[in-house]
Formats: sequence, C-alpha cells, structure tokens
Amino acid sequence: MAQQDRAIRTRRSILEAAAKVFGERGYASATVEEILGRAGVTRGALYFHFSSKEEVALGVLAAQMPLDRLPEGSSKLQKLVDHGMVMAYRLQHDPLVQAGVSLALDQGAGELDRNAAFRAWADQLEQILAEARAQGELLPHIDVSDTAEVLTGAFAGVQAMSQARCNRADLGRRVSVLLRHVLPGISTPAMLAALDLSPERGERVFLECEALPETASSAPRSREGTSP
Amino acid sequence: MAQQDRAIRTRRSILEAAAKVFGERGYASATVEEILGRAGVTRGALYFHFSSKEEVALGVLAAQMPLDRLPEGSSKLQKLVDHGMVMAYRLQHDPLVQAGVSLALDQGAGELDRNAAFRAWADQLEQILAEARAQGELLPHIDVSDTAEVLTGAFAGVQAMSQARCNRADLGRRVSVLLRHVLPGISTPAMLAALDLSPERGERVFLECEALPETASSAPRSREGTSP
Repeated sequence: MAQQDRAIRTRRSILEAAAKVFGERGYASATVEEILGRAGVTRGALYFHFSSKEEVALGVLAAQMPLDRLPEGSSKLQKLVDHGMVMAYRLQHDPLVQAGVSLALDQGAGELDRNAAFRAWADQLEQILAEARAQGELLPHIDVSDTAEVLTGAFAGVQAMSQARCNRADLGRRVSVLLRHVLPGISTPAMLAALDLSPERGERVFLECEALPETASSAPRSREGTSP
Repeated sequence: MAQQDRAIRTRRSILEAAAKVFGERGYASATVEEILGRAGVTRGALYFHFSSKEEVALGVLAAQMPLDRLPEGSSKLQKLVDHGMVMAYRLQHDPLVQAGVSLALDQGAGELDRNAAFRAWADQLEQILAEARAQGELLPHIDVSDTAEVLTGAFAGVQAMSQARCNRADLGRRVSVLLRHVLPGISTPAMLAALDLSPERGERVFLECEALPETASSAPRSREGTSP
C-alpha cells in the first residue's frame, strides 16, 4: 500500500514537472531530460509510468478532464453551468489543469492528439445537455452536439484571453459572462431565471465536491448519478 | 518605387517565414537565425525591418488584425457577423493570419504582449456594437464591452478547436454556430431574423472586399465608414 502511494506520488510529480516544462517551452521543444531534472526522478521511474514524451503529455491533458463528481441537483442546466464554473476555479488554482488546457491549445504540438481533449470535454457537456433536453429544460430547436462543441471551444478561448490579460484572475467573471451570453439562446425562460450564474459559484461547488465522502468520490460515479 | 516594392516584399517574406517557424516550434524556442534561413534574407535586411524576435512576432500578430474595409450595410450587427465570418475565411487561407492567432494563444510566449492582439480585436467589436446600440439593434441590457470580449475569446477558442479537429476545414460552420448561440441573447428579435449567418458568407464578403477599388482599400477607412 505504501509502495502504491509512492508510485502515485512519483507519477504526480512527473506530471507536475512536465506541466511546468510544457508551459515554459511548448510541447515541441520540451525534452524528457528536462522533465526528469525538474521532477527529480530517475529515467527508469519515468518510463515505468510513461512510454514517451507524448504519453506524459496525454497524462497532463487527462488531468484537466472534468470532475466526475459534481453534486447532482434537479436542474441539468445548472450542472452544465457548474462544470464551467468549477473548471474556471480549478484553472485558477491547479498548475496541472492549467498545463492541460495550454497543451490542448498548443498548435505547435503536431504529433499530439489534442483533439481528444476537446472531444472528451464536448462529450461530457453533450451528455449533460441530453439530460437537460429529457427534462424539458432546453428550447426545442437546440442541437445538443453543436451546443456542446461551441461551449467547449468558447470556454477554451475565454480562458486563454483571461490568461493573457491577467493570469486568469478574472476567469470566474468571464465564464459567467460567457454563460449569460449563451444560455438565453438554449434554455427555456423559466429555467434560465432559476440558474445561479454568479462568478463565485465555481469555488463554492468545488469545495462542496471536495467535501463529498471519500467512498463516493474515489470511484467514478455512474452517468445517471444518484442523489446523496 | 521599385525599391519600396522590394522592401515590402522582403518584410512580407520575413513575416511569412517567421509565421512558419513560430507555428512549428512555438515562440519561445524560435530563433532569429531560423527565420533568416527560412526567409532567405540577410541579417541586415531583417534588422532593417525589425529590431528583435519580439518585434517580428508583433508584426505577425498585426497581420491577423481585422480588415478595415468591410462593406458597410445598414445593419451593424450584420457587420459584426461579417467580421467573424471573414476572419474565419482568412484563417482557412492565409498562413500569416493563422500564425498571428496561434501566437495570441501561445501561453509559452511569456515576454510577448499577446494581450494587445486580443485587445485590438475586442476594441474593434466594441466599436461596432456601440454603433449597433445607437441604431437600436441591441437588447437594452447589453454591456457592449462584455459582449465584445466574450465574442473575441469565444472565437479564438472555436478556431483552435477547429484547427485541432480538422485543420479548420469546418471553421465557417463553427463560427456560424457560435453566432447562432450568442446573437439571440444580444439582438432584438426583428434584427435577428434579418441577419445572414450562413457559413459561406465569409468567402462572399471577403471577395467583395478584395474587389473594392484600390484607392478605397489601400487607405485605412474612417471608423464611421462612407458608403461607396
């Protein structure tokens, strides 16, 4: 068990070192040697966890995946909002999440399958939007696939702009503004009026997730979710 | 005059070479030497036009600025749409525009003022939105600064996703989808019904711009614009 803990810590420190190196030089120019030096691990340890620089990068990309354990409420559009708000909060506070998003936007990372990162996000949003449709929360003309893709792309760009402007200090507000611009075009008016789009919501919901019991949070939750 | 033409061509070939080098390695790892080699120009020629790598990059960023000569119609929201649609078309066809947008999103380009590129775009959109407000085309609650910023960021992300997915082959459609998601939240219903949001509009308007008489197109047009 202690050995397993150590392996998890080693893997995490490799990913954190790689996040810094990718962030500073971009994917194309980063080397495994630099990542080793920064992480303070042996080559053998790195290759125990990852077979190549590309695989390390895929590990970093995976770290910015959506949380599987947002609290389930009655409104699915609120769940959609919470995904974005919690991601904004994580982007402000977790270097690994920051590096994952940077990699997804790094157009110099030719060999890397950056599309998979966008795809995973869009799939998750599409699933939530389908649940919202089933509950009658969406306007009838909405194509959930189009909406999921546009939200994913728009979020990626808004966070990049916030990063360039002020190192993401205003990201909560910017994501709130994005949602206030898009939701009127997809939500029924009654549902829209009930949504909490405040910029501080991300932190609140994130802390709520962290406080969920370990047993519920360590295992991936089923897509349908079960209320606590 | 011939000498001036040559200088313009040299400047352009430096920018195009730099666009490729930045695109392949990211800003941080690109060197002036590589740009010289790719452009086939002397160091003296480069330093005649640009004082540093950073200045070359600012030149590339400037190349993706909005066209100053969109045809003026009666609807300012249509002009807003046309800005996005023409940019989508230019991004599909002009390597220099592609490189400018990549640089603006390159989080490894620490020393570079990427914010200026976002700012210039948002300022231009805010100006058009203010004109739209003056003509009564906007819903009353709209904050034109917020809307300009969210559109700029969202566009940047949507194009990045399209680039990762299919090298921007579907960008016209994606920008059309973005606009169809945002405009219902900002436009009056009557104006919304009159807008042309078709994915092919970018190409049409771009070719129209190219066909404008040289005298009108070579000088920057005033912000107010004068109908031909």
